[in-house]
Amino acid sequence: MQKLKVDLGENSYDILIGADLLADTGYLLKNTLKNKKVLIVSNPTIFPLYGDIVVKSLNNAGFIVITHLIPDGEIYKNLDEANKIIDTCVNHRLERTSSIIALGGGVVGDIAGFVAAIYQRGINYIQIPTTLLAQVDSSVGGKVAVNHPLSKNMIGAFHQPKLVIADTNTLTTIEKRDYISGLGEICKYGIIYDLDFFNLLTDNIQAIREKSPQILGQIIYHSCRIKSTIVADDEKETGIRAILNLGHTFGHAIESLTNYVTYRHGEAVIMGTVAACYLALELDLINEQDFNKIIKLYGDLGILLPFPTLSLAAVYDAMLTDKKIANDQMTFILPHHIGNYAIRNDIEKELVLKAIHKAQQI
Amino acid sequence: MQKLKVDLGENSYDILIGADLLADTGYLLKNTLKNKKVLIVSNPTIFPLYGDIVVKSLNNAGFIVITHLIPDGEIYKNLDEANKIIDTCVNHRLERTSSIIALGGGVVGDIAGFVAAIYQRGINYIQIPTTLLAQVDSSVGGKVAVNHPLSKNMIGAFHQPKLVIADTNTLTTIEKRDYISGLGEICKYGIIYDLDFFNLLTDNIQAIREKSPQILGQIIYHSCRIKSTIVADDEKETGIRAILNLGHTFGHAIESLTNYVTYRHGEAVIMGTVAACYLALELDLINEQDFNKIIKLYGDLGILLPFPTLSLAAVYDAMLTDKKIANDQMTFILPHHIGNYAIRNDIEKELVLKAIHKAQQI
Repeated sequence: MQKLKVDLGENSYDILIGADLLADTGYLLKNTLKNKKVLIVSNPTIFPLYGDIVVKSLNNAGFIVITHLIPDGEIYKNLDEANKIIDTCVNHRLERTSSIIALGGGVVGDIAGFVAAIYQRGINYIQIPTTLLAQVDSSVGGKVAVNHPLSKNMIGAFHQPKLVIADTNTLTTIEKRDYISGLGEICKYGIIYDLDFFNLLTDNIQAIREKSPQILGQIIYHSCRIKSTIVADDEKETGIRAILNLGHTFGHAIESLTNYVTYRHGEAVIMGTVAACYLALELDLINEQDFNKIIKLYGDLGILLPFPTLSLAAVYDAMLTDKKIANDQMTFILPHHIGNYAIRNDIEKELVLKAIHKAQQI
Repeated sequence: MQKLKVDLGENSYDILIGADLLADTGYLLKNTLKNKKVLIVSNPTIFPLYGDIVVKSLNNAGFIVITHLIPDGEIYKNLDEANKIIDTCVNHRLERTSSIIALGGGVVGDIAGFVAAIYQRGINYIQIPTTLLAQVDSSVGGKVAVNHPLSKNMIGAFHQPKLVIADTNTLTTIEKRDYISGLGEICKYGIIYDLDFFNLLTDNIQAIREKSPQILGQIIYHSCRIKSTIVADDEKETGIRAILNLGHTFGHAIESLTNYVTYRHGEAVIMGTVAACYLALELDLINEQDFNKIIKLYGDLGILLPFPTLSLAAVYDAMLTDKKIANDQMTFILPHHIGNYAIRNDIEKELVLKAIHKAQQI
């Protein structure tokens, strides 16, 4: 088991990474949580796989466990479902010192964390992410949210977990598309922030494709380390943390225009990242050699996804609705060489449309 | 104009107290808010009285003003109405650096502040409280929330305003019941924390009843000062801040059992405070002389309200549902002499019922 401390002053917490951790859930939480009433939020896909082992471990450690399942899928990450979870909290009299445990992927984590942030003005939140994307992305940073019909993650909070338990065993059962989503996020950390990590990925293509437990532990650890370095500098996302949104402005537009059902969040971010790379190439922020290295990595990992053939005007308009827009100016996070970033808010619409068009031709 | 700084580190803000401040709203906010898009949340009772003057002042200072009215009343302080405000934010493309201005009493402030806390994970929040209770209570502390059908303020956040503008002129138009509510809160600060302030009140009964602007400014300032001293020690309400809940455990039960429509929040707190004083007398925390002084102050101010004749068992059960309960033990904040407090979680049900019964006989 590896332990990574996310250092946020009084909001600091640990991420535990390793195999077979689920069976120790109760033991791992025993000292952290004084109030023994916990609510597990999960979904009907994940809970049958891992619910028993987690509940049993919690019961053995003296916890009283309540369970609430939400339907599986991004479209259920909304205020209505959050409200139903709140009903469960009230009906079971969860207290200020009680805890909510998210057992599942990013959707489960986001909505469960959001409820933990607003129920009684904030109660303890524990994450047990069961997808690669959730393990390397939402397990660091405390961003929790639900979607608004018109825009993603529009309603949310910053609410740090008390502990994250990332069991690499859960990755053996995830769908191929979910694995791809996670790899996309992992590549992003290398491209934007860490050339050595980018090279680690290009040097281990085969092991990554085969889900070698050793390389998985390694890349999850480094991904969380990179993200937590960035987040520690900027807990409330007023500055540098925004660089994590590489590909997100494009990606959110894709998700919004396809009603959050056609693509996984991570798939949309991959498509958006490729578009961002084209834009960076146009702007001479990366040269053709680096651009090709990135495209090759995506291709070798089997995660090079073309941008969907949506109307360019519609994509651009959806991007304008994205919440990161200050004073109606779109801000882009772009790669600058490999391992570094540029933030640009002066990019002409024409160039953006061109990049999208190219990403559609892959 | 008096200025009180609420000192909360990077979340510090000023409360401005005085007459004729509304006409200066735009001027007062000009330097605080860089993004000029603001949403005013108000209700159909308050907005016709003060909307024009505030909007005009904001427009003159270069602000773009959007307005959203919620129906008047505590029953509308719910997630549905919050969601409608969020729709307005999204439809008008409010940005992360935009602001929400609450123009109204506690209900407007609580729901507008809650939306400001969760829209895009938190945007600027400005309070213009127009009732005495809102000026002395919700203008300090950053507690924002909406009600759950089963329990008050169950869904919320801590979100500090950027500025509070308390115009004493608005108190000339408030209903008698609202004035009573505010006075109840003010008395509470004296009873629980500040004997000098308690004596200031007993020495100025006539001026307070006549709403003398000078005494109003003075008691609002001191109330905010006392509350901010307590809050500064305990922003997230994990300790001493709980003493502000004198009367609230009883009061919330009254509100809940009468569906939030029969009594104002402040009226319920007055009834609850009187019950708490009976309980303190039973426990010898206050002597009969101090008890009588408190009852006399309430009587002289015309705010001595009997506890409603609800079934004692029902009141007790509703108190158990209140969110301040840790490990199913009810914690009571009680006066200890005048100007000091006791926190007790070991009180037998029988004594609690007796105190309620006595408060019903006033």
